Amino acid sequence: MTFSFSVGDRLADSVDGAQGRTGVISTPHGDIATPAFVPVGTKATVKAVLPETMSDLGSQALLANAYHLYLQPGSDIVDEAGGLGAFMNWPGPTFTDSGGFQVLSLGAGFRKVLAMDTTGRKSDDVIAEGKERLAHIDDEGVTFKSHLDGSKHRFTPEVSMRIQHQLGADIIFAFDECTTLMNTRDYQERSVDRTQAWAARCVAEHELLTAARADKPYQALFGVVQGAQYEDLRRQSARGLVELGFDGFGIGGALDKELLGTIVGWVCEELPEDKPRHLLGIGEPDDLFAGVESGADTFDCVSPSRVARSSRVYTYDGQRNLAVAASRRSFAPIDEECDCYTCTHYTEAYLHHLFKAKEYNAGTLVTIHNERFIVRLVDRIRASISDGTYAELKAEFLGRYYASRA
Amino acid sequence: MTFSFSVGDRLADSVDGAQGRTGVISTPHGDIATPAFVPVGTKATVKAVLPETMSDLGSQALLANAYHLYLQPGSDIVDEAGGLGAFMNWPGPTFTDSGGFQVLSLGAGFRKVLAMDTTGRKSDDVIAEGKERLAHIDDEGVTFKSHLDGSKHRFTPEVSMRIQHQLGADIIFAFDECTTLMNTRDYQERSVDRTQAWAARCVAEHELLTAARADKPYQALFGVVQGAQYEDLRRQSARGLVELGFDGFGIGGALDKELLGTIVGWVCEELPEDKPRHLLGIGEPDDLFAGVESGADTFDCVSPSRVARSSRVYTYDGQRNLAVAASRRSFAPIDEECDCYTCTHYTEAYLHHLFKAKEYNAGTLVTIHNERFIVRLVDRIRASISDGTYAELKAEFLGRYYASRA
Repeated sequence: MTFSFSVGDRLADSVDGAQGRTGVISTPHGDIATPAFVPVGTKATVKAVLPETMSDLGSQALLANAYHLYLQPGSDIVDEAGGLGAFMNWPGPTFTDSGGFQVLSLGAGFRKVLAMDTTGRKSDDVIAEGKERLAHIDDEGVTFKSHLDGSKHRFTPEVSMRIQHQLGADIIFAFDECTTLMNTRDYQERSVDRTQAWAARCVAEHELLTAARADKPYQALFGVVQGAQYEDLRRQSARGLVELGFDGFGIGGALDKELLGTIVGWVCEELPEDKPRHLLGIGEPDDLFAGVESGADTFDCVSPSRVARSSRVYTYDGQRNLAVAASRRSFAPIDEECDCYTCTHYTEAYLHHLFKAKEYNAGTLVTIHNERFIVRLVDRIRASISDGTYAELKAEFLGRYYASRA
Repeated sequence: MTFSFSVGDRLADSVDGAQGRTGVISTPHGDIATPAFVPVGTKATVKAVLPETMSDLGSQALLANAYHLYLQPGSDIVDEAGGLGAFMNWPGPTFTDSGGFQVLSLGAGFRKVLAMDTTGRKSDDVIAEGKERLAHIDDEGVTFKSHLDGSKHRFTPEVSMRIQHQLGADIIFAFDECTTLMNTRDYQERSVDRTQAWAARCVAEHELLTAARADKPYQALFGVVQGAQYEDLRRQSARGLVELGFDGFGIGGALDKELLGTIVGWVCEELPEDKPRHLLGIGEPDDLFAGVESGADTFDCVSPSRVARSSRVYTYDGQRNLAVAASRRSFAPIDEECDCYTCTHYTEAYLHHLFKAKEYNAGTLVTIHNERFIVRLVDRIRASISDGTYAELKAEFLGRYYASRA
């Protein structure tokens, strides 16, 4: 087994409730210095950016998605290609998300269900009892329709494990039920129990597959803590997963932004110190600070890439849109303080032109900037934990970043 | 003046009617070893590929378009940015096409005019007399509507020169009338006279602008030979332009594929040996061989990039489409003999997946392959002229490339 995690420095006690730490995750495809931001390449490619460029901008690992790759090209094809990293020309560490979130959120129907929720109808009834027969969840698994062609599929904990073994990422996640903040307390209780039962089935299937595929690099399995905004459920979920002996943990599900640090804090108090913790789908600057100081080690988020393609950029003074007239004659970089390839080679006026001209390289260049911005921020957070300047970095960075909202 | 051209080796006499040669074009932004293929970055960007990547794949120069850049972002903005090369982060030599072709082909209405032509109606009547008032040509210039927003604009030889001086490419082209093979002989005669008159106006305006902008790098002006498929008109056009003292020559307009080598041959017989000749808009393998041996030195074409984005690739055994089922499990490169970044790092199965998933990097990776394929082909043609193996290269390459059609 070539997976391990070692804790390095700890966040100074002066930060309230601090559980933050630095560390190193070792995988068969290399190490990840933590805290680390892991850019997302959902379909085995970071949209519009080549893998060498992702490496150049400081990405230590990439995260792809089991649901998307199962549907296209098929996890068997990725397996035949030598696994996710070989398939996508990324020699470093890889993660795959289990597909639990996507089968419910992208499987045909979920968005309709959410839309109905806004009328006050409980989504529990629709999702849990499957009245709409669009994304139907039961204690065995989830039946859903492909968002690509409407074809019917079924994911179970065992299926997700088989898919993720075929994909072959270094770090894979247990198949969980991802609830929303609109579900009832009663439903959240039942869901946490279901996620726990599924976690046990994932561990069992993972052990079988690991033995059967002993010629492949070891894949670390992370359990995913659910429980929404409820402290008792989050702690119960974490404790239950710890007993199953996972290699690490994901923190998933509904995370009210106001409570994000608090929830991560509850969970990390229950998790063993010597296992890495991944906060799923989180990547805004304030959330990264909150996550790190509450004990999370790694993060993934599509935001840097997604907002880039809609011409929005991160800067040290907040987010801006480059498709506005003010950018037309700005012959300076997006951000003078940024060290990315885009800021050191192109003006804002050029990027504005590329967006107006609907050119592919608009998305490429701004994604490079945004991913570098977030990766570098977490790199700076990591360094600040080691040299004892975390509190200063946080105050200075967030003060400036959010000043424009004041 | 820092523009020059020197002829190197000449094509062996054993090739019928051979006028082919190697050479070096020297510009303020570097040299171009000829024959050379010049990839197109119409809007100051090669679609989906970054400039360093274009350099890595062997591109010695890039060609952008005056019409497109005039409309967006505006040639004044490119000028303020330090010129085309600085704007697009391409330190090497640059060309701009005059916009003569685009104002007629992309200006609102031309496609409708062409559609009418297929009914047998003479396009002369429509284009020349401007009955449709969509793209109206007269002896002074062309009035057209933007293909972007329908706004009305007017290009004259003087306007084209001013735009191209603001864009600041190393090699710029005189504003010409680009006719079609469907125009009448009578119309072609009048058009050649008009292009000649416009060429003289371009030279005069170019001299004024060169003097007025003496702080800028010298821009070489190429006259564009027209005359469609008529030998007397082509020779007349070439002789007329030679008298105007251009730095080099473009060969443009309607080129029947069967007659391409013949037409280029007529023109090059009239052109001085010591000036470079650019064949506009040509880039298919057989056309490149025909062009080189008939005396053309440089070539540009959007094809490698355009066909790439529709999932078609060049290979040594002809063109193929990667979006077909046969590519799904092909874990080999597009072409084992290709040395490009894509072929040395990715399988056809991965590229197939990217096209199916509608991912940006599909276009990026296949454009890299196709541009490398054509750039390398012309590099091999250049080497074969020097070492006396041109005839063998042509026979072997074209024999294999077109075998699939047999």
